[in-house]
Amino acid sequence: MATAGAAAPWKQLLLNAMELNSSLKHSSYFQLATIGSNGKPSNRTVVFRGFEEESNKIQINTDYRSSKIEDLKHCQFAEICWYFTDSWEQFRINGTVDIIDALNPDPEKLRQRAKAWFASSPRSRLQYLGPSPGLPYIGEEPKQEYSQDPATGPVHEFCLLVLDPEQVDYLNLKSNQRLSFQSTETDDGGKCWKTEKVNP
Amino acid sequence: MATAGAAAPWKQLLLNAMELNSSLKHSSYFQLATIGSNGKPSNRTVVFRGFEEESNKIQINTDYRSSKIEDLKHCQFAEICWYFTDSWEQFRINGTVDIIDALNPDPEKLRQRAKAWFASSPRSRLQYLGPSPGLPYIGEEPKQEYSQDPATGPVHEFCLLVLDPEQVDYLNLKSNQRLSFQSTETDDGGKCWKTEKVNP
Repeated sequence: MATAGAAAPWKQLLLNAMELNSSLKHSSYFQLATIGSNGKPSNRTVVFRGFEEESNKIQINTDYRSSKIEDLKHCQFAEICWYFTDSWEQFRINGTVDIIDALNPDPEKLRQRAKAWFASSPRSRLQYLGPSPGLPYIGEEPKQEYSQDPATGPVHEFCLLVLDPEQVDYLNLKSNQRLSFQSTETDDGGKCWKTEKVNP
Repeated sequence: MATAGAAAPWKQLLLNAMELNSSLKHSSYFQLATIGSNGKPSNRTVVFRGFEEESNKIQINTDYRSSKIEDLKHCQFAEICWYFTDSWEQFRINGTVDIIDALNPDPEKLRQRAKAWFASSPRSRLQYLGPSPGLPYIGEEPKQEYSQDPATGPVHEFCLLVLDPEQVDYLNLKSNQRLSFQSTETDDGGKCWKTEKVNP
């Protein structure tokens, strides 16, 4: 029975899987499913950028111009599917996603966004200077103005997504065990987690 | 400009990626996103079971009792996200999914379902004899009656899913190139594919 701030019961399982698979670069990649404004599901690979400070919330960096932003503005629910190829473990994590862009009115959230920017590599920061993702390629080159100074804060296009987990489904294909974690909200705005063993 | 029966322009790219990554067992795994009857996205890892004979349609085996069946009955659209960890290529493939279960009235589809059953390993066939996936675990053991005879046809729980691709988004993270493939239906019920280079 975890309350606000406490680690959810699935978090240690996830940390263990990350540790077990840490030799693989792709172990920090997972698939994020959203619903498009056309009502159809959408699915893409994104990179895990850590938990929000002392919480169970999952951080993802993205370009504000990418279609997942439009999807999430239309429907804030998303499901992560994170398969660990070495340990044969799958985590399905669903919840709502908070979009923290340059115009967010909350100074604390803007601080988190800046922190995520500075935690990302200079190479990955350059991505945000390119032309709009998904639009027809016309040979346009990335803008140069921010490309060299590592002390410059986040560009306008940089966006932090924070997924607040509500349900987690854990499957271990080696032991053939499956666990279901369901949360309910507590009076203090925290989450209470219930764990159940389910059929694989 | 492919017509009915012809290979779509993205198919050779996908076959190349499969070949390049074939030393990895997990290269045949991808994530399938659907929409649940609660209107929320759902995402899980499934196994590629080949293309339907001489077509661009993608086959997946599943248990009729799994929640993805309920999802697909509610909304037939799905999106595959297939990331190849060795070649750093991603294919996002969306389209509609045909559910071919034991009660399907089409004899040709039932033949495909039986073919998919016999193409799967005896070990993976055993899965379908277990208790309902996702329900609380009560120590129930798999049924034994079909477990030994490899000549027995598909059990009732075995279901073939066939995804008919409508759009494909290809991203190569090594070359940083992205291609968008869009189909339109032709008069003869086939598909005409348009390829466009888009910004990564």
